[in-house]
Amino acid sequence: MHNIKLTVAYDGTDFRGWQRQPGQPTVQGMLADVLRQLTQQRVILYAAGRTDAGVHAWGQVVNFKTPSELAPEEFKRGLNALLPPTIRILAAEEVGPDFHSRWMALAKTYVYSIYRGAVVPPFRCRYVLHVRQELDFAAMAEAARYFEGQHDFTSFAASTGSEDEDRDQTMVRSIFCSELIDWSRSSGGLVSTASCGLQPYPEEWAYVVRGSSFLRYMVRKIVGTILQVGRGKRTASEIPRLLEKRDRSCSGPTAPPEGLCLHSVEYPDPAASLIEKRLTR
Amino acid sequence: MHNIKLTVAYDGTDFRGWQRQPGQPTVQGMLADVLRQLTQQRVILYAAGRTDAGVHAWGQVVNFKTPSELAPEEFKRGLNALLPPTIRILAAEEVGPDFHSRWMALAKTYVYSIYRGAVVPPFRCRYVLHVRQELDFAAMAEAARYFEGQHDFTSFAASTGSEDEDRDQTMVRSIFCSELIDWSRSSGGLVSTASCGLQPYPEEWAYVVRGSSFLRYMVRKIVGTILQVGRGKRTASEIPRLLEKRDRSCSGPTAPPEGLCLHSVEYPDPAASLIEKRLTR
Repeated sequence: MHNIKLTVAYDGTDFRGWQRQPGQPTVQGMLADVLRQLTQQRVILYAAGRTDAGVHAWGQVVNFKTPSELAPEEFKRGLNALLPPTIRILAAEEVGPDFHSRWMALAKTYVYSIYRGAVVPPFRCRYVLHVRQELDFAAMAEAARYFEGQHDFTSFAASTGSEDEDRDQTMVRSIFCSELIDWSRSSGGLVSTASCGLQPYPEEWAYVVRGSSFLRYMVRKIVGTILQVGRGKRTASEIPRLLEKRDRSCSGPTAPPEGLCLHSVEYPDPAASLIEKRLTR
Repeated sequence: MHNIKLTVAYDGTDFRGWQRQPGQPTVQGMLADVLRQLTQQRVILYAAGRTDAGVHAWGQVVNFKTPSELAPEEFKRGLNALLPPTIRILAAEEVGPDFHSRWMALAKTYVYSIYRGAVVPPFRCRYVLHVRQELDFAAMAEAARYFEGQHDFTSFAASTGSEDEDRDQTMVRSIFCSELIDWSRSSGGLVSTASCGLQPYPEEWAYVVRGSSFLRYMVRKIVGTILQVGRGKRTASEIPRLLEKRDRSCSGPTAPPEGLCLHSVEYPDPAASLIEKRLTR
């Protein structure tokens, strides 16, 4: 069996999210159907992040095991030939048998785009939340920073389910970086304009968050809460108290999906882990 | 009667072009329906360029006469509230009774985007032609320059009809600028990346053409011909002979519509024309 790792970009607008649902267009369903055509076999697909309906991806990571002798480059070419242009395989490679896109992810980075100009260009309307009202950037940027560190994120979880619900029951997550960017003033920290795939306009702000893993709706609930801070409905310094409450009803509303994009997923360096294995033998 | 000038951006993907056609989604049809809702009156809309199905616009200019007392800013807000997000009014202003978006245009600029990377990002697939094969940039750039000046463009006209067919019968058009841009090496001449609205990726080339007016399919036929030069099927120096032939069948194929965008339209400076009128009285 070969274990194939794919880096996948998609425009989530027309999909009911990642996860296969009978009779609904989903990214997993599309990929599985096309892989079946290519390999004449059923494949089970694992994704690093099970993005919700309408959420986009630039660097989603997917893996599947297959007896097929197709080379990774052939998978890439074959999939891109058969998939709709709204789903693209950016890279394909063979990985070791232990690689699992979800369990082995060390960090995921999400970007949430907020359009601040008066009128959203029609070429950009699928990828941003439009907020015209005045927003206090400094207060929002301060609020964003409070999410960094290890916290119990119950207050920012969906009422039911979590992205990693079958992995563990804890609501504790580690956020390595949580910041608000104004593209007119910054070229981006973690995600530069050049690397972010979504090609933001200078009229945009982006909330960028990099963490170990995320609860379902967590990023969108954080964004909804930061927007309340921007509108003066909360102060940034309330965030630590919200986290402490561990109450699903106390955070802001879930921001709409179209602004959200799974930007990238990080894994242990395969060379480093090989050395580690040899050393521990 | 008030004469209102609108600057309109649209994603042409889902429209059968500018011009109203019964039972088809068109930009003119959409705008007319929504203006009727706003003013309770039928309006006749004129556009600077009657873009074809699938062609986009960043700076289309439209005007209409109305007895409505709505201020231009109210038209802008009302239209943007009622139109789909794929059509946006970027600006609205009241102009003199003589202003006509088509007959008074001094120049129009079109941009045709060609994606040169291996895989088109899903967020960009609606706005580019993807060409993976090797292309000779220098030869294409040289070919582009040959279109500058005043020429009879019969060889680059659609088999039937012209954008300005009811204006005059001549096929002579003046091209002020015709150039190929590699966004990875240039920030754009006539259209800078900042101003072009389409936010090109560095993996793109753009054919930018500014002229007095254009025959139907002219820009797309020029692009099809320049691409033949890029692939070595023609030499750049053949272009003057193609123009001389005045034969609709001798140019390259019509490039697909999705790469094309009406970037901007220029008009006489109203202040200057006012002075001119006073002087000639």
